[in-house]
Amino acid sequence: MSIATLVKTGTSALDRLFTPKSIAIVGASNRMPGIGGYVTANIARAFSGPIYPVNPREQEIQGLKAYPSVADLPRDIDLAMIVVPAEGVAAVLEACAAQGIGGAVIITSGFAEVGGPGVALQAEVAAIVARTGIRVVGPNCIGFMNLADGVMANFVIDPTDPLPRGGPVALISQSGGLGGYMVRKAIYAGLNLGWFVSTGNEVDLSIAATLRYIVEREDTRVLLGACEGLHDLELFIDTALRAAELDKPFILLKAGRSEEAALAAQAHTGSLVGSAEAFDAVCRQYGVFVAHSLEEMLDLGVIFQGGRRAHGRRVGIITGSGGAGVILADACVLEGLAVPLLPAAEQAALLELMPKPFMGSVANPVDVTAQALAKPGAFEAVLTGVPAGDGVDMIAPVIIGNPTHPEMYIRAHATTQKPVAFVSTLLPTSLLDAGIAAYTDPRRAAHALSALAAFSLRKPRTTRPATPRADPARIAAARAILQAPRDGETLMEVDAKALLALYGAPVTREEMSRAPDEAVAAAARLGGKVALKVMSYALPHKSDVGGVRLGLSGDDEVREGFAGLMADVARNAPGARIEGVLVQEMAPARLEILCGMKRDPVFGPIVAVGLGGVLVEVLGQAAVMQAPFAPDDVKAALGGLLGGRLLTSKRGLAPEELEAVVRLAVALGQAALELPEISEIDVNPVRVADGSALAADALIVVGAS
Amino acid sequence: MSIATLVKTGTSALDRLFTPKSIAIVGASNRMPGIGGYVTANIARAFSGPIYPVNPREQEIQGLKAYPSVADLPRDIDLAMIVVPAEGVAAVLEACAAQGIGGAVIITSGFAEVGGPGVALQAEVAAIVARTGIRVVGPNCIGFMNLADGVMANFVIDPTDPLPRGGPVALISQSGGLGGYMVRKAIYAGLNLGWFVSTGNEVDLSIAATLRYIVEREDTRVLLGACEGLHDLELFIDTALRAAELDKPFILLKAGRSEEAALAAQAHTGSLVGSAEAFDAVCRQYGVFVAHSLEEMLDLGVIFQGGRRAHGRRVGIITGSGGAGVILADACVLEGLAVPLLPAAEQAALLELMPKPFMGSVANPVDVTAQALAKPGAFEAVLTGVPAGDGVDMIAPVIIGNPTHPEMYIRAHATTQKPVAFVSTLLPTSLLDAGIAAYTDPRRAAHALSALAAFSLRKPRTTRPATPRADPARIAAARAILQAPRDGETLMEVDAKALLALYGAPVTREEMSRAPDEAVAAAARLGGKVALKVMSYALPHKSDVGGVRLGLSGDDEVREGFAGLMADVARNAPGARIEGVLVQEMAPARLEILCGMKRDPVFGPIVAVGLGGVLVEVLGQAAVMQAPFAPDDVKAALGGLLGGRLLTSKRGLAPEELEAVVRLAVALGQAALELPEISEIDVNPVRVADGSALAADALIVVGAS
Repeated sequence: MSIATLVKTGTSALDRLFTPKSIAIVGASNRMPGIGGYVTANIARAFSGPIYPVNPREQEIQGLKAYPSVADLPRDIDLAMIVVPAEGVAAVLEACAAQGIGGAVIITSGFAEVGGPGVALQAEVAAIVARTGIRVVGPNCIGFMNLADGVMANFVIDPTDPLPRGGPVALISQSGGLGGYMVRKAIYAGLNLGWFVSTGNEVDLSIAATLRYIVEREDTRVLLGACEGLHDLELFIDTALRAAELDKPFILLKAGRSEEAALAAQAHTGSLVGSAEAFDAVCRQYGVFVAHSLEEMLDLGVIFQGGRRAHGRRVGIITGSGGAGVILADACVLEGLAVPLLPAAEQAALLELMPKPFMGSVANPVDVTAQALAKPGAFEAVLTGVPAGDGVDMIAPVIIGNPTHPEMYIRAHATTQKPVAFVSTLLPTSLLDAGIAAYTDPRRAAHALSALAAFSLRKPRTTRPATPRADPARIAAARAILQAPRDGETLMEVDAKALLALYGAPVTREEMSRAPDEAVAAAARLGGKVALKVMSYALPHKSDVGGVRLGLSGDDEVREGFAGLMADVARNAPGARIEGVLVQEMAPARLEILCGMKRDPVFGPIVAVGLGGVLVEVLGQAAVMQAPFAPDDVKAALGGLLGGRLLTSKRGLAPEELEAVVRLAVALGQAALELPEISEIDVNPVRVADGSALAADALIVVGAS
Repeated sequence: MSIATLVKTGTSALDRLFTPKSIAIVGASNRMPGIGGYVTANIARAFSGPIYPVNPREQEIQGLKAYPSVADLPRDIDLAMIVVPAEGVAAVLEACAAQGIGGAVIITSGFAEVGGPGVALQAEVAAIVARTGIRVVGPNCIGFMNLADGVMANFVIDPTDPLPRGGPVALISQSGGLGGYMVRKAIYAGLNLGWFVSTGNEVDLSIAATLRYIVEREDTRVLLGACEGLHDLELFIDTALRAAELDKPFILLKAGRSEEAALAAQAHTGSLVGSAEAFDAVCRQYGVFVAHSLEEMLDLGVIFQGGRRAHGRRVGIITGSGGAGVILADACVLEGLAVPLLPAAEQAALLELMPKPFMGSVANPVDVTAQALAKPGAFEAVLTGVPAGDGVDMIAPVIIGNPTHPEMYIRAHATTQKPVAFVSTLLPTSLLDAGIAAYTDPRRAAHALSALAAFSLRKPRTTRPATPRADPARIAAARAILQAPRDGETLMEVDAKALLALYGAPVTREEMSRAPDEAVAAAARLGGKVALKVMSYALPHKSDVGGVRLGLSGDDEVREGFAGLMADVARNAPGARIEGVLVQEMAPARLEILCGMKRDPVFGPIVAVGLGGVLVEVLGQAAVMQAPFAPDDVKAALGGLLGGRLLTSKRGLAPEELEAVVRLAVALGQAALELPEISEIDVNPVRVADGSALAADALIVVGAS
């Protein structure tokens, strides 16, 4: 669905669906175990409003009066659960709409996911949604959970399992099975889930639309989503911007990455940008965390749910074991955090608390040793003393097992507003129950703290990147170049560079020539060494036909080069019409970069910047941006390549070189947005040296790629 | 300690220490909680032989007759636990040796780890070990555990905690605290630990020596080690070779990586090889898994402890949820495994078992859907049917929680010899108790299966790489070059290349010249374009003084180049004595590589191969080998760079180019082994194109680096 649809129906229809005052269950059942029975029992045990089971064969379902059909229900019920066989769903949904029901959750499977007749059945349901405006979750889903309002409209957990305790985390999943798996695992991990929605086949509400609804909920502070693809890109970006504005962390787990990678590799060998990379680019630009495993997503949820923020990246480690402290300090540093020595005064104060003689350390990691662990008072003083100081921004205590005196930890946790992540050999339920984050692996705890610090310290993007005003004169000039006569779909290099220069791209200085004398004169004007390149609409691959000469200096070399080049081309490509010979300044290169633009069917224009000229395939890495993007997005993406060394190492990009590369990338993105007829741009190589980065060759493809 | 020491005392002394028939506890205590009390109680609850508490103030300790001093004990007790204050340890150890006690575990801390007087106390202990030959674990350790022989000589767990169930896994840790953390976490993770040793300050037994002892034990099938450094390199390699020979997986977790990385970065900026990389290289060469987190080490232990091996990399996934199957299939592919469609006949057979109409999939992932999950018979038939076929090598079933009917899974597990890793929302203790591997995260399960497949399919190295016979004539020729007169420590390029060529390195063809005519003649003999390079012992950085000319062809260019070069050098380095001008063939380059050798204080000669010529700093990656190494080690290390793309991508190394790079790396390693006076070699660039890889420049540094 589009933003327009969301706006049109307002959120009130969704409010009725997700926070109903009354619920009907069509296909309610007494049979246990069974989906209809589970859904009924789950709703019955948590919901305080009226519940209307519909079942033509029973008088009573699980102690509630049953109704023979939807038509027999009172009017204007808010939510209907539909658990009837697939063939009957359309009729039931139609009846629900007729009865004034606000929204429906279609649990039933057997629709588009099974192909064949299921596709037709789903189309029928979609038509009813479009015609009546009834809002629908599903079909082929396991329902949703909204604990604050007592709505367990699902069969995610058995009705005999305890109700989750609720909380500020919302988890949305396309797949019902995966969602069910994650909900259970989340509960064990100490995640306080208040919301869960499985969107299933998404005949109406997509995962993006659901997230867009839930991000506004005041009872929700953290968004987790698991999806295979993103179809409502605009709505997704809108959700991300809104989450940033509301300071709510948003974490996505994407399934099907390996498959896409494999497909991408088959379909266009050498392509640097699979859809997974474009997905990652959008997430990076809009501040969404991409989780690479289910546990990583839950780990981040656990640290974020407390709502605390970090003022820096410094971690204070408190442990009873030096070795565990070293492993945790290691993990912190590897995750980009710092484990600084505590200030001398703080160390002295801590030392006062320790038994004498003291064989541990108060430096950081603070190793209180087994001696002090045995003195609860001293240990609690350390647990409160370290966060109270100015030396660290976050706290990571190491404990063993489920502590016998959890009160001490819970009290200490309450004395500070700094984020705390416990590391223990097993998840300490006593701390999890108190809403305190805990992890069983030092690396995972460090990763969670690192994500929290990154989120806390970020400059949130709450609006789309500003794009330069579309300049009609520039567009007209660009279109004039694009409409130049050509064979096939590829612009000549000289035209491609001229077009990119309109958008601010740094390109080599160059002139066209049609005769040796013109070339000599042009070379003299350019100064220094020059390159000669044959220009022909028929010859996009110039060097294959001997159409390039490099590093010529002096009139004789230029004249001879011109003649030799023309002779080679005449021999190798006898039929080609030659437009001229480009005389181009030779650009020095300490580094070679490439910069390209492709259009992704879902994500639109994607710009990639890669290192290495001919090495690009070997390196297989690129910074990827989705247009529109800001200069800072390019810098952030480049900073994420190769451990940041492209920007930090001595031979990497100097500041002015980086600015030039950024200008080039922005030019490609802007040209792609303004000129939809361009399907592809390749600038390779970009020659980087001495404070400049110049497009030394460029290819623009027009039309369907 | 050295192998010689181990061999001298034989293993019988260690047998007495680690599998004692009688145990004394010096410092035994009734006080609980307390270290002396815990050690006594832990020994008493598991050991069936005689136990002799020593305590001068008590008649009886925990119900056992106490002895006033070591001198009062019967002679020839096998093991003494020492839990007395640090100041008294030396006297007790001396008394133990005098009493014929085989070995001692010194639990007491306050030795070298606290510095100052502790260092002297430890030296005293070391002197007693050296003089008497008594074997010692510790000091500053938490003891050891050998469950098969009922030896709980430790305070790792409380005496009131249940005894671990034992099993084929041995865990050795330098740090006691970390060891204690890991033992507890290992037990929760379902690891069947039979052995644990904390080596502490290692006054006698190092972690390598302990592993070398334990690898021979028939009751041990998997070795896990956690260490900060490796000091007994020879013994460590010997252990790894022996583990490979005995088909026992060996997994190491190294603490202090971040610190080393930081130190390395400070100490020698631009160095590609920190000690952590050298450590990784040794582990790769000798088949040792390097774990990057505590959980990763335990995860691998859990899959290896069953002893099963995989015949290929194909995983069969069985799930009741399509979404969970996709996430797991994804994880498998990302970990280098395959999830192939099952053979048609197998699919048909599985389909027969499914309820009708069937809405899942029998292709792989086999998604039985909730329908079939509800029919235990059908589900068990799938659990046994998938591994029984030929389509997959390993099995990964997804389940939810701790199953209510574990017998079904345990029976199915027993019908196959293929490795099985369950994925569940929480660790299913019923399966762990039955020795079945389970993980809560799909990615971790896939990683464990991938490691198991790699181990199963490897060609184990059971002896050191064969090194070419040291050729006295070659050494003499190399020494002649090394002894050529030079200023400072750096060889001239021409000499460095000549030396490397003796060891089989592929180098550019070249000739020295002393006058323009000689250079012209040499260029004519070499053919094609040539480079000229000034040769002077005083000018290792030739291009800085204008001492290089590239791409000259024809007599005139060579003659003019020679003159211009000499003029530039005379101007820029007026005092330098010039030995001549090297005339070198121009080597084409599609790729530039560098290859270097440095000596590591622990690991000896380390050879690194990196990509990119000037890009090497930006890429920050290199293939690292510890000499001696075999050609296959170079290929394996290069295959591990950049996702393998250096060997597989179209512009990467062609087979003959790879062979040439391997010859070069092997030459550097061999030269370093035979010529210890060489401290450093840098070959940069190695120019790669058209099936060859040629050293185009080389630097050899002699003497202390």
